[in-house]
Amino acid sequence: QGILERLDAGEIVIGDGGFVFALEKRGYVKAGPWTPEATVEHPEAVRQLHREFLRAGSNVLQTFTFYASEDKLENRGNYVAEKISCQKVNEAACDIAREVADEGDALVAGGVSQTPSYLSCKDKTEVKAAFRKQLDVFMKKNVDFLIAEYFEHVEEAVWAVEVLKESGKPVAATMCIGPEGDMHGVSPGQCAVQLVKAGASIVGVNCHFDPETSLETVKLMKEGLQAAKLKAHLMSQPLAFHTPDCGKQGFIDLPEFPFGLEPRIVTRWDIQKYARKAYDLGIRFIGGCCGFEPYHIRAIAEELAPERGFLPEASEKHGSWGDNLSMHTKPWVRARARKEYWQNLNPASGRPYCPAMSKPDGWGVTKGARELMQQKEATTEQQLKELFQKQKM
Amino acid sequence: QGILERLDAGEIVIGDGGFVFALEKRGYVKAGPWTPEATVEHPEAVRQLHREFLRAGSNVLQTFTFYASEDKLENRGNYVAEKISCQKVNEAACDIAREVADEGDALVAGGVSQTPSYLSCKDKTEVKAAFRKQLDVFMKKNVDFLIAEYFEHVEEAVWAVEVLKESGKPVAATMCIGPEGDMHGVSPGQCAVQLVKAGASIVGVNCHFDPETSLETVKLMKEGLQAAKLKAHLMSQPLAFHTPDCGKQGFIDLPEFPFGLEPRIVTRWDIQKYARKAYDLGIRFIGGCCGFEPYHIRAIAEELAPERGFLPEASEKHGSWGDNLSMHTKPWVRARARKEYWQNLNPASGRPYCPAMSKPDGWGVTKGARELMQQKEATTEQQLKELFQKQKM
Amino acid sequence: QGILERLDAGEIVIGDGGFVFALEKRGYVKAGPWTPEATVEHPEAVRQLHREFLRAGSNVLQTFTFYASEDKLENRGNYVAEKISCQKVNEAACDIAREVADEGDALVAGGVSQTPSYLSCKDKTEVKAAFRKQLDVFMKKNVDFLIAEYFEHVEEAVWAVEVLKESGKPVAATMCIGPEGDMHGVSPGQCAVQLVKAGASIVGVNCHFDPETSLETVKLMKEGLQAAKLKAHLMSQPLAFHTPDCGKQGFIDLPEFPFGLEPRIVTRWDIQKYARKAYDLGIRFIGGCCGFEPYHIRAIAEELAPERGFLPEASEKHGSWGDNLSMHTKPWVRARARKEYWQNLNPASGRPYCPAMSKPDGWGVTKGARELMQQKEATTEQQLKELFQKQKM
Amino acid sequence: QGILERLDAGEIVIGDGGFVFALEKRGYVKAGPWTPEATVEHPEAVRQLHREFLRAGSNVLQTFTFYASEDKLENRGNYVAEKISCQKVNEAACDIAREVADEGDALVAGGVSQTPSYLSCKDKTEVKAAFRKQLDVFMKKNVDFLIAEYFEHVEEAVWAVEVLKESGKPVAATMCIGPEGDMHGVSPGQCAVQLVKAGASIVGVNCHFDPETSLETVKLMKEGLQAAKLKAHLMSQPLAFHTPDCGKQGFIDLPEFPFGLEPRIVTRWDIQKYARKAYDLGIRFIGGCCGFEPYHIRAIAEELAPERGFLPEASEKHGSWGDNLSMHTKPWVRARARKEYWQNLNPASGRPYCPAMSKPDGWGVTKGARELMQQKEATTEQQLKELFQKQKM
Repeated sequence: QGILERLDAGEIVIGDGGFVFALEKRGYVKAGPWTPEATVEHPEAVRQLHREFLRAGSNVLQTFTFYASEDKLENRGNYVAEKISCQKVNEAACDIAREVADEGDALVAGGVSQTPSYLSCKDKTEVKAAFRKQLDVFMKKNVDFLIAEYFEHVEEAVWAVEVLKESGKPVAATMCIGPEGDMHGVSPGQCAVQLVKAGASIVGVNCHFDPETSLETVKLMKEGLQAAKLKAHLMSQPLAFHTPDCGKQGFIDLPEFPFGLEPRIVTRWDIQKYARKAYDLGIRFIGGCCGFEPYHIRAIAEELAPERGFLPEASEKHGSWGDNLSMHTKPWVRARARKEYWQNLNPASGRPYCPAMSKPDGWGVTKGARELMQQKEATTEQQLKELFQKQKM
Repeated sequence: QGILERLDAGEIVIGDGGFVFALEKRGYVKAGPWTPEATVEHPEAVRQLHREFLRAGSNVLQTFTFYASEDKLENRGNYVAEKISCQKVNEAACDIAREVADEGDALVAGGVSQTPSYLSCKDKTEVKAAFRKQLDVFMKKNVDFLIAEYFEHVEEAVWAVEVLKESGKPVAATMCIGPEGDMHGVSPGQCAVQLVKAGASIVGVNCHFDPETSLETVKLMKEGLQAAKLKAHLMSQPLAFHTPDCGKQGFIDLPEFPFGLEPRIVTRWDIQKYARKAYDLGIRFIGGCCGFEPYHIRAIAEELAPERGFLPEASEKHGSWGDNLSMHTKPWVRARARKEYWQNLNPASGRPYCPAMSKPDGWGVTKGARELMQQKEATTEQQLKELFQKQKM
Repeated sequence: QGILERLDAGEIVIGDGGFVFALEKRGYVKAGPWTPEATVEHPEAVRQLHREFLRAGSNVLQTFTFYASEDKLENRGNYVAEKISCQKVNEAACDIAREVADEGDALVAGGVSQTPSYLSCKDKTEVKAAFRKQLDVFMKKNVDFLIAEYFEHVEEAVWAVEVLKESGKPVAATMCIGPEGDMHGVSPGQCAVQLVKAGASIVGVNCHFDPETSLETVKLMKEGLQAAKLKAHLMSQPLAFHTPDCGKQGFIDLPEFPFGLEPRIVTRWDIQKYARKAYDLGIRFIGGCCGFEPYHIRAIAEELAPERGFLPEASEKHGSWGDNLSMHTKPWVRARARKEYWQNLNPASGRPYCPAMSKPDGWGVTKGARELMQQKEATTEQQLKELFQKQKM
Repeated sequence: QGILERLDAGEIVIGDGGFVFALEKRGYVKAGPWTPEATVEHPEAVRQLHREFLRAGSNVLQTFTFYASEDKLENRGNYVAEKISCQKVNEAACDIAREVADEGDALVAGGVSQTPSYLSCKDKTEVKAAFRKQLDVFMKKNVDFLIAEYFEHVEEAVWAVEVLKESGKPVAATMCIGPEGDMHGVSPGQCAVQLVKAGASIVGVNCHFDPETSLETVKLMKEGLQAAKLKAHLMSQPLAFHTPDCGKQGFIDLPEFPFGLEPRIVTRWDIQKYARKAYDLGIRFIGGCCGFEPYHIRAIAEELAPERGFLPEASEKHGSWGDNLSMHTKPWVRARARKEYWQNLNPASGRPYCPAMSKPDGWGVTKGARELMQQKEATTEQQLKELFQKQKM
């Protein structure tokens, strides 16, 4: 059954987790460029991660084609060990995802994301051509549906949806925005309306913010659609990091991004809370983005097992709410084998010299300084230093 | 070259990371029993993890035979989906480790760990028989050397070393203790002395405590050996969790164990600091235990690259000290592409409702209550609850 | 010169600090009732506190008549050691304030605050009679102006202003509300408009929220007045506690209220920041409420010394920005004798087992439970316990 | 009854709190010099503070003569508004203390503390002469007994005790040290032994460390005396700040000293715990030092009321364990009117951007740098800056 048949029937569809972050920690993706040449270089590593998400309960395997548009790969080309063509990367991604999907009950979704062409102000035709190039591969490989994800500007997301709709396949669209809306100031509600009008059947958010904030944003999207009397399925794929201190541009501005985010990693219990809340909000496509490991996806599947009627395969290695601790030799560890314990735990960081929250870089920057920083001129070491001095005051 | 040839020549030997924790998150190991039947059930997952450690710089691949003694597997047998014999688990572990080791420059180490037989007061003969059963497999599969690890009682560790020495192969021995010593009150220095006298060529600690605490313990071992005029190589394989608040029995008593440890996960920069400190202390076998992911092992290899003269394979996907951020579009992210930045960062937890440290369970328990808790009688729900009430006061 | 002459001339007027909290710590006021019978019982203690605020720079000494309406004193009468009449308490308060004010350049302000009569739904006539009773004393003792403060409902505050205006003296009015507005849902902007229309020449907020939040609220009041084309002077007298985690009803709902607020106490540097921000916002009557000690008031006077042209008397015992540390024997203490140091310090709590923020009681309570809790019926021990159980989930 | 009669009879003697910190916040003492010229300049402020401690339960009023030796007053003379002689300051202190002591059941103790003469290496004769000058005043004013307090070097403390013993009055001696001992490396046990041999009848610690650490130190003193078969009464007067992160020299090295210590202030409940623990340890002279306000002293008196059989006067304004909240209009505030609530509260700081602990300045400094810093040469701005750079690494 296709994605829309499932959602229309009221099924819960579980997405997968974050490939670039998981594979960075496993040694196959470079932080910074975040490009997916591993599909060609180390297919076994990509396959294994897909398999883990499948076992954990994912119903959708996204092709590992994040940032795999030709302009992005070229732009970051100096990072790619050997020149690997855009087409090869996308084709390999499709093949691997399909191979694993066939091992279970999962759909393959071809994915496109924001392009450097858009940011460098190229025109609509050029940006759309980049998406179409990836779409050609997805059609050739016959993916089940398409996702336009990780867009900071709704304008570009709309262009992506328009291209993907040419295929005739169902299209989902998620933006990496928070409750304040897109980078041009378009509200989440308005973003959702525009995406649905462009042809998306499923809309929501991914990346950039923690589960709690992301659900707030989806709620605003839902309200926007209701106000506009439009119908669409809702989707959320947030970070697996706590980011209550984020500014408008999300976790990238946090001083810990991307190499010091560990203390922010959410627990499986945080995810169960998220899954329940997402479900209660009416979201039926529930997954994750950066930071989501297989056990986080399994936590979604376990929380919603009563509604779905079954547990994922990987739950054979996981007791509900820690019940596998009930045989421990120490009675105080046995005492942790219960829902109430884990639900109410406020886990310590083991870091008494660290604060609970950070001020995002750029936070206190004056408007003038921020503009200067965003210009090319601000990149000399000295200017940068001065700007940061100002900013930290 | 064998392990002793390398260490005797002054080489740095990098160990691998923690299998049970990493594979638990990937969906192949059950927390609580922590047994390694995945070697038979899902060899591809075990193989992939070995490969990632190898790429990250590990020179030693430990067979995934933790808690794979027959008594342990039987004891936790109800968790094993299908009955899988002890021999099969150990053989498969050896085969997988060897297959991956041959892909690079790594040794295979057969490992044994503490047994339930010892804890239930069985006699020396019986305990040694359990180790010998595993050793038989290691000899048949011709591992390169042997490690007796994760012992809380030096007496049992000595028995293990004695059995492993029968093989004629080099033996390393690590205990999961902190500066306060083993569970019978034997000091780290005395533990080291007894292990070396029993035949271990390499001694140190693994698991239960964070890198900083573990290095303190190894320092005490070193001093004990010096005082006894004994010589041995030093080894450390600590947790990748910050645990400044641990009691004598380590992280198991922390309220967050094992499902809420996320905020304690160490960063790659914490590991670089650890690797440098371990090196300065004279430790030359430097690895990790629970919580160590491939990128943590890579951080050891990168920190010690100047001494070793080369980087590991996985560093092709990692810039030193974040230098791959230097191309980022945002100047404030570019400004993070330097050593001083990451070295001085105090990362926030994003959890303003959580404390920095926890009181270990059992911490404030009166002696009478603790004894009661350790008895079988304390396991009724009501008694447990009352004891915990007392304990929390 | 009177209060309005000063403000009209653009002068900065510095208020005083919090009497009930300071005198509770000194042993003269009982937390809970918070009534000011100390004016009769221990006039020397009240006089000394007034004097300290005067020395610290206060231009206004408020009579210590908080909660000194007859209905309140009677209601809490069981706490008053000997029966002391409402009139005596108010008269003594006026005498003490005047005596100290005459030692320096300060005005005496008679103050009224919210009454139990209003909360128990008595009618306008009765509530106004209570205010009038206090006003009679203020007129007899000829205070310089009047303040209606600590009102959670603008309706009652308006009644108070109407009564006080009968005197012909200038009237200031502050509400203990946050940005969400009064307990009946009236916005800060609307509150300000109603108060000014009722006759208040000065409006603002006091108590219940920290300086930062209080300034946000005053900003909303200012905007409300501008939108209504009304003119009034602005005033702020916030808590000297950090309360970023407050709900709508302020610090009373925090679990730490009132006996565990210590870690939240603001530093003198926090106050300098507050004073500057208040000034920049156009507020010219700047003081404090609960938690403000004399040194906090001095910090306002020191921050605004450039604008005012002079330092308060108590600054003879205080160097600007710690400059009196410049003679310390330790060089690292000497190094603290500078503005940048104290301005950027993020002070540690010394409490690694405590969190940064709390969830206010009542926070997660369901609407039904909250309503029940606010009813008399909820007061049996058992019901209360059950409600709290629910609330903590 | 004299101090020794009381202690010999097994009575609990409650000390007073910290004058320099309390009066600094009230505007009468300058941080840095910390000298007590307020006895002459503002006797009413000193008198009022004595009175508050008396009401709170203090049985001993210490003359406000801290740092009132002639050499200290001269050394810090530039801070004293008008030249006020050493003799006048000490005489006024005695008169004020006696006046208030006569209002209740309290003894007056004349106090001396460490001198700049000792630190600048003057000889024994000169240092003793400084103490004798203060002693002359104490004898003329006929104080009840004498306290030598706040000594970092036991050698100087012994000299002080020797001088004070010349008077024939009982002598108490406290050092401002932690478990690591005095600045010359003498252990707490040895310090106690030397002080008792010099003639002190009461020994213990004051200032520099938090209650918990101070009790550890007194415990070591007690063990030292027992080992030496000496007898003396024990005394503790710690800080009212949490300082788990202190180095050997106590809170002065903390980055928050002295103007950012607010988040570390202990609650009344912390003090009740301290009082109980001190009592259980056998300490019978229990008071406080810097940070102790009257309500902290009252908390000692309330905790030990069962043993003493009475409450202090100021308890008429304080319910035991918050029981005066039982009449609050909000049920959730009423629910705080119980011991278990306050005993188990982990109070939040309201400061999510601040850490739990700090690294003391000088902490990570290399030995060479520290020595340099302690020399005069290190005081140029540039050198200081460089040293701090090194230290922070």
